[in-house]
Amino acid sequence: MIDVYAFATPNSLKVPIALEELGLDYVLHAVDIKRGEQRAPQFLALNPNGKVPVLVESGAEGRAVLTESAAILVHLAETHDALLPSTGMARARVFEQLFFHASAVSPAYGQAGFFKRLAAEPQPLALQRFEAEARRVTGLLDATLARHPFVAGDAYSIADIAHFGWIWRHQFPGLDLADTPHVAAWHARMLERPAVQRAIARVNALVPA
Amino acid sequence: MIDVYAFATPNSLKVPIALEELGLDYVLHAVDIKRGEQRAPQFLALNPNGKVPVLVESGAEGRAVLTESAAILVHLAETHDALLPSTGMARARVFEQLFFHASAVSPAYGQAGFFKRLAAEPQPLALQRFEAEARRVTGLLDATLARHPFVAGDAYSIADIAHFGWIWRHQFPGLDLADTPHVAAWHARMLERPAVQRAIARVNALVPA
Repeated sequence: MIDVYAFATPNSLKVPIALEELGLDYVLHAVDIKRGEQRAPQFLALNPNGKVPVLVESGAEGRAVLTESAAILVHLAETHDALLPSTGMARARVFEQLFFHASAVSPAYGQAGFFKRLAAEPQPLALQRFEAEARRVTGLLDATLARHPFVAGDAYSIADIAHFGWIWRHQFPGLDLADTPHVAAWHARMLERPAVQRAIARVNALVPA
Repeated sequence: MIDVYAFATPNSLKVPIALEELGLDYVLHAVDIKRGEQRAPQFLALNPNGKVPVLVESGAEGRAVLTESAAILVHLAETHDALLPSTGMARARVFEQLFFHASAVSPAYGQAGFFKRLAAEPQPLALQRFEAEARRVTGLLDATLARHPFVAGDAYSIADIAHFGWIWRHQFPGLDLADTPHVAAWHARMLERPAVQRAIARVNALVPA
């Protein structure tokens, strides 16, 4: 049995997309981060880092709790032998993009959005720094997608799923995808995938009306 | 043949440590980031992201260029079948820590150090934000290391190498490891490893006197 603790967030979305692509059943549990539920004791017992998503696998071998959206993607891809090439540089390119997303795209988008929308007082140099970085990394992704249809090459992979989480929310850091046409075209192709559509509908349904 | 483009930086150090642990020969090439060499056209041709480290493997099958320090660690571990459990949750824990490092520890340390030491004008709320986050994630790592000797469990892995890169430079964000005794003890054990000592000596030797 697979349980996923999530909300309608960039990192949360990645896990339901992978599960939908793999055709697996799962139960989604809302962790309402607008109400601070990620800091509640029962959630911190699941993930001391206080972040969604969390994957819980239960079965004959017991119960395993896994955090970090990209680590969950790698785990699902490896245990179901899909969405990740098994050897060689094609495989290395997927990890290169997963870590580029985790270390560069995700922090830049998150901090740019924070300083643009949520900071208690304006921090103009910080906002400028993270907006510039968000534009820079999106430009790098655009150059990558100019060369091949998916972020890690010719095949759809968990690296596309990882990048999609934040590109889906490009308005948070104030980006306009018209500036990066290859990213825009890839984003549109991703949105056409039934698995992506189902995952978006399911995470959006976690938000109280 | 293995070439590594690097400097005495937290992310650079990870690759020589792994290569030393694996007993592989490699040539280290200095990219002096204090002089901006990471933005020179010939380096950007290697890594358009303008970041060290970069791994270049040359052989009968041609030449492969790989970026992102953690992706390089995964590639080396998988191709040499070491420093990464092959299956199950022991393997998933390594990826969980690799992505925790890439998405949380590394950006927090890097930004805290930037706003503490390098920003053109004080941005007090930004500094406060990233210093608090650097302390928080180091506290999480301390709780992890209270439970087992290495960051992903009972075995030394590439996740230890990844975290060590930034913990080695904990003074940049202004942290005192005395506040996190399990991290301090792990850091001291890491420094006792001959491979770690050799790697530190080699990256420090890249810096002009």
